[in-house]
Amino acid sequence: MSGRARNILFIMCDQLRFDYLGCAGHPRLRTPHIDALAARAVRFSRAYAQSPVCGASRMCFYTGRYVHSHGASWNDVPLKVGEMTMGDYLRPLGLRTALVGKTHMRADMEGMARLGIDPASKIGVLTSECGFEPFERDDGLYGIGPDGRYDEREPRYNDYLRELGYAGDNPWHDWANAAADDDGELLSGWFLKNAGRPARIPNEHSETPYMTRRAMDFIAAAGDQPWCLHLSYIKPHWPYIVPAPYHALYDAADVLPAVRADSERGNHAHPVFRAFMDHRVARVFARDEVRRAVIPAYMGLIAQIDDQLGALFEFMADRDLFADTMIVLTSDHGDYLGDHWLGEKDLFHEPSVKIPLIVFDPTKAADKARGTVCEALTESIDLLPTFVEALGGEPQPHRLEGLSLLPLLRGETPPHWRRHVISEYDYSLQPAARALDTGPSASRLFMVADARWKYIHAPGFRPMLFDLQNDPDELVDRGDDDDCHEVRQTMQAALMRWALRACQRTTVSDEEICDRRDRPADDGILIGFWDAEDLPQPLRRTYRNILQKRH
Amino acid sequence: MSGRARNILFIMCDQLRFDYLGCAGHPRLRTPHIDALAARAVRFSRAYAQSPVCGASRMCFYTGRYVHSHGASWNDVPLKVGEMTMGDYLRPLGLRTALVGKTHMRADMEGMARLGIDPASKIGVLTSECGFEPFERDDGLYGIGPDGRYDEREPRYNDYLRELGYAGDNPWHDWANAAADDDGELLSGWFLKNAGRPARIPNEHSETPYMTRRAMDFIAAAGDQPWCLHLSYIKPHWPYIVPAPYHALYDAADVLPAVRADSERGNHAHPVFRAFMDHRVARVFARDEVRRAVIPAYMGLIAQIDDQLGALFEFMADRDLFADTMIVLTSDHGDYLGDHWLGEKDLFHEPSVKIPLIVFDPTKAADKARGTVCEALTESIDLLPTFVEALGGEPQPHRLEGLSLLPLLRGETPPHWRRHVISEYDYSLQPAARALDTGPSASRLFMVADARWKYIHAPGFRPMLFDLQNDPDELVDRGDDDDCHEVRQTMQAALMRWALRACQRTTVSDEEICDRRDRPADDGILIGFWDAEDLPQPLRRTYRNILQKRH
Repeated sequence: MSGRARNILFIMCDQLRFDYLGCAGHPRLRTPHIDALAARAVRFSRAYAQSPVCGASRMCFYTGRYVHSHGASWNDVPLKVGEMTMGDYLRPLGLRTALVGKTHMRADMEGMARLGIDPASKIGVLTSECGFEPFERDDGLYGIGPDGRYDEREPRYNDYLRELGYAGDNPWHDWANAAADDDGELLSGWFLKNAGRPARIPNEHSETPYMTRRAMDFIAAAGDQPWCLHLSYIKPHWPYIVPAPYHALYDAADVLPAVRADSERGNHAHPVFRAFMDHRVARVFARDEVRRAVIPAYMGLIAQIDDQLGALFEFMADRDLFADTMIVLTSDHGDYLGDHWLGEKDLFHEPSVKIPLIVFDPTKAADKARGTVCEALTESIDLLPTFVEALGGEPQPHRLEGLSLLPLLRGETPPHWRRHVISEYDYSLQPAARALDTGPSASRLFMVADARWKYIHAPGFRPMLFDLQNDPDELVDRGDDDDCHEVRQTMQAALMRWALRACQRTTVSDEEICDRRDRPADDGILIGFWDAEDLPQPLRRTYRNILQKRH
Repeated sequence: MSGRARNILFIMCDQLRFDYLGCAGHPRLRTPHIDALAARAVRFSRAYAQSPVCGASRMCFYTGRYVHSHGASWNDVPLKVGEMTMGDYLRPLGLRTALVGKTHMRADMEGMARLGIDPASKIGVLTSECGFEPFERDDGLYGIGPDGRYDEREPRYNDYLRELGYAGDNPWHDWANAAADDDGELLSGWFLKNAGRPARIPNEHSETPYMTRRAMDFIAAAGDQPWCLHLSYIKPHWPYIVPAPYHALYDAADVLPAVRADSERGNHAHPVFRAFMDHRVARVFARDEVRRAVIPAYMGLIAQIDDQLGALFEFMADRDLFADTMIVLTSDHGDYLGDHWLGEKDLFHEPSVKIPLIVFDPTKAADKARGTVCEALTESIDLLPTFVEALGGEPQPHRLEGLSLLPLLRGETPPHWRRHVISEYDYSLQPAARALDTGPSASRLFMVADARWKYIHAPGFRPMLFDLQNDPDELVDRGDDDDCHEVRQTMQAALMRWALRACQRTTVSDEEICDRRDRPADDGILIGFWDAEDLPQPLRRTYRNILQKRH
């Protein structure tokens, strides 16, 4: 254990619920390797994603800023050129910052063209790749439909599969994310009905082990330079399909009952919630047969990740990397899996907006907090300032909006920790916006939550409100309950403070502001002086000398 | 009069009060050439600056976005690289976009370095110069003090003066902005006591005529390409000193009584207002001798601008440029001049935050509104979308936050015109922040005003509130008046709507949002389908073909 972290291993899963881990209390799922990490780390039990959708959430992790600040509010909304990303903060501290897996980054090609940045140049690639050196970029969804490919890029993983003899123009789909029926006919992993079958490839050829090996390749090749590796698994995100033996680890008996009540669908339902319950994915997850087919596969995908992390941690231990590597395990958001009559993510119930967050700090100072669970309110934007502080960098609160977790990792409780967390959702690209006829800029939701209440501001509609203390399952929306008027006002005021925060004055540090404030009138710009006698000493003498010299 | 504007002449004065024009009703000041323009144009009587300070206000004009959006919240806060500016919108429409005079732009050198943009390259210069080709950049303040120069750049204007024989290392100060006593000793224009004396140079060598000639140089040289020329006078901004005969056009008898009441300084004074009344410039303008010395010079500077605009308009008329040139005359903010016990600008009383705004639209469609006064609530950010529309460009509401004035210029009243205007102020660099002990991010003010009420949200303090209808001089702060509780709530809600607006999703147009929303599941990413039977036709057939082909 050294005095300061040297490397960062930043592991992200995609769509991993906060409560689908052994250490988080799941009664059936076994995740021994993640649990072992948690036993050496701090697990944050109230960590929230800044937006319950991949792209927007990730851009918050990578920029350390809220969606309302960086603007990439949904999948495939380009992150505008100029927004600083993780690499911009960590490279000056001497780290090589690399990616294995998914970022969901869409480059701002128009902005880059406007500024004359060649996308093929070194800076162009970093700008396009959200600040990461793309050791292995793979967003993990390669659909083909009548409009062509979803992503123009051909993943290296497809080449890898082809070299192994898996034929076709999209082996990602046809082998890794498909099953076969009893006659050997291809059954697409896109269809939930096939979730219980094994993928058409052996475990070692599937995505999670492939990405783990690529991470090891990077670490082995990294040499003497410190690094930040973002190992970003595509799973347990859909297509919900997993190779043997993981497809059979769990079955319908391991599926927990859905957390939902008929009253949620009643007349009282909030219009936006209702519109989301009408989404196809919500309707399909309302069917028990779907949950019974999908959830065991989802659990198998998590077990597969856990085993791979076991291998990775062993690889790291062999290289003594636990001595100086900070390790983070988190997810970009959760998955409703039928809870609250919903599928996917998008809204702000805990299964969707809460994320697992485990942080291992290798330093001695962290010893006393190892194995503890921290209930402080944390946000995904806290990671980047944590990394900066762990590596000895200067805090940059004028652009990084999160709080360093370092004190919490070392068992200290900062006196002024945040009292509210924020999450946002832009549903302008969703069918709900069509159904509600909300315009492209009006289709937005804002969550503000404290330790007890979760308030959701929905412009154009009444708010939603949940009492996490007395209704931890969030089954009763008290958004128009007269008894909660004051709570709503308090939460609304907290949201207002947040909305008006200074989040765009990113070009001047707070120190520079204070420094400039403390030396007015010294730069020869004299404001409000009747005559030279009004000048303070010694400025009066200096200025007279200047005037006389000039004269 | 053609069907569409071809050129834009965008004239800005610095620190020109909205009510210091003949056409705006000033009882003493004569501005016949500006009045003549207003007689052919529309004068907006309720136009507001987005921030009552040079740099922040100008960045709003140039980006078409609020301070809260672009972040350059005070003077010398660099506008971050990537923010689009006027040139980025107008050059694609075929215009050459050039500057003569001041922008107060500070380049984001750190951001440019991060993106590998060479400041000396064409794009680097445009990025540094806020999107303008710097035909003649001159910010007009060249102080020298113990810390050296205020601005590293040497203005061409100094060379011009030296060529004429005005000696010294800063002829801008020693001649153009200084007077002489009866013995010929230099009297600095920085000292208000000297405001009544003539500058040490003849009118034709002073800054306003020089800049006017440079504007003519540009127009004469522009050739066939349409242009947008930003003619940005430094005056009537301080140093308050003007050459003969303008120094003697007005005297103390022309000075209007200060709009102020003893009650404003009483115990009831808002803490932030009180802290600003304690600024040196405020205390000096509280003295009548200061107002008597300064205001005639201020009026002389305006009269000088008016005469120069007369010459410019004649030059343009000779070239038939009124046929196809949109002409704007405005200012970045006002000047308290002792009203409300304040000097300079900074706060939100009308003399500070309201701006003159005259817009001449050369097209026939505008004929019916010529010479009218429009009372609609307008903002400085409205100009850029006005230019874009006038030139036939596409509206871009996903990044331009203002509203095109074109309907108003043509006598039409849009059914859903804005009901509130916003202005902001970051006082973190001011002595008030020291006095109030507000932190670098907390020292901010937000004004929201409708046709009757002006509400000022001051985080950490109670709000301010003025009734513009019954108290047009804004002498009674009703920020804690129980009778105004509902008004405050209404204004607070308007501010909340504004604060939560989608202002950073600038990389995707509203059209693209709607277009993408309307074609889900067509890109081969299939979410929430139990099996192929669930697919809508014709996607089902297509997908089967794809699957079969692959198989």
